[in-house]
Amino acid sequence: MVRLTKIYTKTGDKGDTGLGDGSRVAKHDLRVEAYGTVDEANAVIGLARLHVDEVLDGILARIQNDLFDVGADLCTPFAENPKYPPLRLAGAKTLELEQEIDKFNADIPSLRSFILPAGNPAATHLHHARTVTRRAERIIVQLKEDQEISQSVLEYMNRLSDLLFVLARHANGKGKDDVLWVPGE
Amino acid sequence: MVRLTKIYTKTGDKGDTGLGDGSRVAKHDLRVEAYGTVDEANAVIGLARLHVDEVLDGILARIQNDLFDVGADLCTPFAENPKYPPLRLAGAKTLELEQEIDKFNADIPSLRSFILPAGNPAATHLHHARTVTRRAERIIVQLKEDQEISQSVLEYMNRLSDLLFVLARHANGKGKDDVLWVPGE
Amino acid sequence: MVRLTKIYTKTGDKGDTGLGDGSRVAKHDLRVEAYGTVDEANAVIGLARLHVDEVLDGILARIQNDLFDVGADLCTPFAENPKYPPLRLAGAKTLELEQEIDKFNADIPSLRSFILPAGNPAATHLHHARTVTRRAERIIVQLKEDQEISQSVLEYMNRLSDLLFVLARHANGKGKDDVLWVPGE
Ligand code: B12
Ligand code: B12
Ligand code: B12
Ligand SMILES: C[C@H]1O[C@@H](n2cnc3c(N)ncnc32)[C@H](O)[C@@H]1O
Ligand SMILES: C[C@H]1O[C@@H](n2cnc3c(N)ncnc32)[C@H](O)[C@@H]1O
Ligand SMILES: C[C@H]1O[C@@H](n2cnc3c(N)ncnc32)[C@H](O)[C@@H]1O
Ligand SMILES: [Mg+2]
Ligand SMILES: [Mg+2]
Ligand SMILES: [Mg+2]
Repeated sequence: MVRLTKIYTKTGDKGDTGLGDGSRVAKHDLRVEAYGTVDEANAVIGLARLHVDEVLDGILARIQNDLFDVGADLCTPFAENPKYPPLRLAGAKTLELEQEIDKFNADIPSLRSFILPAGNPAATHLHHARTVTRRAERIIVQLKEDQEISQSVLEYMNRLSDLLFVLARHANGKGKDDVLWVPGE
Repeated sequence: MVRLTKIYTKTGDKGDTGLGDGSRVAKHDLRVEAYGTVDEANAVIGLARLHVDEVLDGILARIQNDLFDVGADLCTPFAENPKYPPLRLAGAKTLELEQEIDKFNADIPSLRSFILPAGNPAATHLHHARTVTRRAERIIVQLKEDQEISQSVLEYMNRLSDLLFVLARHANGKGKDDVLWVPGE
Repeated sequence: MVRLTKIYTKTGDKGDTGLGDGSRVAKHDLRVEAYGTVDEANAVIGLARLHVDEVLDGILARIQNDLFDVGADLCTPFAENPKYPPLRLAGAKTLELEQEIDKFNADIPSLRSFILPAGNPAATHLHHARTVTRRAERIIVQLKEDQEISQSVLEYMNRLSDLLFVLARHANGKGKDDVLWVPGE
């Protein structure tokens, strides 16, 4: 169990830090970059929660909890005989996102161009969260180049940015207030 | 023409994705990083729009549209005989930004120190947008190390962060409410 | 003394830029990434200031000023015989942060799990600032791999994210409104 008490320990003042399994790496290690960026995406989802309706707030609260499962998964390197069974993100979490994408997307007209990331506060913050989630996804994919990564994490992050897009449109009057990109205008 | 319908396709679940010309690259490819970060800057400009006056809102709306031209330019590698003529960012877009910088800067006292990125909501969000735009610029410059990049894109992004600075000061009572950095205080 | 007048100079349109000592580097040089990300963290702290009480606002204003000392330190490479004495971040600045962490943490229950980066606007924006500060710290640590970096800067950035965490909890009804992560829920 994680415990947070005194908060600062000074052990990281030289630039190295601990992973979930206790091993030490540099703070700019890709693994730390990965869960650090998931943490940032989580915070920006928190900002979106300040503006959405109750239904969306419930969905985003669950996602915020999920993202700590993602972080727990990412902070624990795969090992042959781990001392304790590591927490891995459940694959069912992605299914849940897909069902929500389908449900909210059903109400929204399809698009013949991109939409500006703008509109009301809820929609705009959801677009912001979408882009930071995609930045986290990119780093996780980079980490995958030389470390084993849970496939569930990759799928979850990929689907999450799509759900955030659909929720942004939903929040913008079910797409009614979305403004289309006009190429080269 | 871009079409957005079902939104999630699962084709990117392994970590690779498609560019504008259909070629596949890793999601952490610098080109994807570049337009992905332009997308993020665009979203943060959307946040600023929630707080600015009508004149600035019009300018930022146009810039949001321009940034999809930037993204279209970046997502399409330069090629000898492209199947279709690619969309490239018009150089005139940068001129427009320069005229706006000059116009808004004329009203504002020059500075003998940096200003804190603070003040009213409009100014602060414009500062935020300024810093994310500069992050996008840095990645585009990095991409330029091994790929051809439109010079218009480099100039546009460089000028855009300067316009956002001037607009931030304009929004802060034409610089009256700006607080100066006091070195070593 | 820094002077800001015409704002855009076009000298950076090719992708290189000047450091504090006048030397030219690419815009994606790690040193520029480092102070550019400190600038971004500073802007997000500015956003938090829009929502906190007067006491916290005073603390964050001082920190915003400090972060320009951090930027001045980072933008000036260490040199044998510098033409002018460079500004370096005072070590005492970190002590100030530690005292504030201890003071605000004393009022807050310790934790048996992580908390969701959510709650009221002040808390949520402080969490956002925490995560961007940590991103800046990671880049500074990376820069340290091949350049001399002030130890005071590393310590300051490490402690700053911890203070932002404690202030976020303080703002959330002294931790009363914090929601705990439930692993694997
Ligand atoms: C990775 C990590 C993070 C990541 C990701 C976390 C995530 N899950 O998404 C991020 C970046 C978000 C993070 C943030 C913070 N963190 Co942190 N984090 C960690 C770290 C390294 C691992 C935590 C984790 O998620 N583990 C995975 C979970 C599932 O593990 P677990 O709950 O321990 O469960 C396992 C054990 O129970 C084990 N087990 C089973 N039976 C038994 C029996 C025994 C005897 C044992 C030992 C184990 C065991 O099996 C389980 C499954 O694997 C810990 C240090 C550590 N190694 O524990 C610090 C740590 C908890 N963090 C710390 C801090 C300070 C923070 C921040 C405040 C930093 C900041 N300023 O932002 C924030 C708080 C964020 C918040 N919202 O609350 C400190 C707390 C210090 C203190 N005592 O006060 C720690 C201890 C690091 C340190 N030494 O400084 N953190
Ligand atoms: C790059 C890209 C992005 C980038 C940048 C876009 C930009 N312009 O700034 C970013 C990161 C912003 C992005 C975001 C998103 N995207 Co996107 N994106 C693309 C991609 C790869 C290229 C789009 C583009 O801008 N092309 C450049 C423009 C100018 O091209 P064009 O309009 O097609 O015009 C050319 C053609 O018309 C051609 N042409 C002329 N005559 C003819 C005739 C024929 C027959 C043909 C074929 C072509 C042709 O010449 C023109 C000029 O070159 C497309 C896939 C693809 N290859 O098209 C996906 C794609 C459109 N995106 C997709 C999705 C899902 C999204 C997001 C929802 C993802 C998310 N969760 O965030 C968001 C939505 C953002 C928004 N605000 O609306 C999906 C849509 C799936 C669907 N059908 O529902 C696509 C199809 C990718 C995929 N297969 O999954 N995207
Ligand atoms: C690094 C830097 C930044 C960084 C970090 C700054 C920090 N401290 O955190 C960041 C990224 C934040 C930044 C942002 C911006 N910057 Co800037 N920045 C610089 C740079 C390279 C160094 C500034 C610095 O902090 N120096 C360290 C301090 C301590 O140095 P100093 O005050 O000069 O003090 C020293 C001197 O006085 C010297 N000294 C002592 N005696 C004497 C005597 C003589 C004769 C001399 C020469 C020196 C000297 O010793 C002192 C200690 O070392 C300058 C260019 C330059 N080389 O000066 C541009 C510069 C000031 N920035 C500029 C601009 C445009 C901006 C932005 C508007 C860009 C944007 N669109 O976002 C923003 C504004 C931000 C704000 N909030 O106000 C322009 C201004 C152009 C103009 N004239 O209008 C400059 C001149 C760069 C350029 N040529 O384009 N910047
Ligand atoms: C919609 C388009 O966005 C690009 N794409 C796919 N995943 C990401 C990501 N994590 N970040 C940025 N861009 C991405 C691909 O080019 C895709 O076709
Ligand atoms: C104002 C100062 O900011 C730095 N600079 C120039 N371009 C960028 C960018 N995209 N991101 C961060 N810093 C930048 C240079 O050092 C310049 O002199
Ligand atoms: C709380 C946990 O966060 C991780 N950690 C330490 N410093 C950073 C940083 N700058 N960014 C992201 N994660 C960090 C370490 O794993 C630490 O134990
Ligand atoms: Mg995707
Ligand atoms: Mg510039
Ligand atoms: Mg730390």
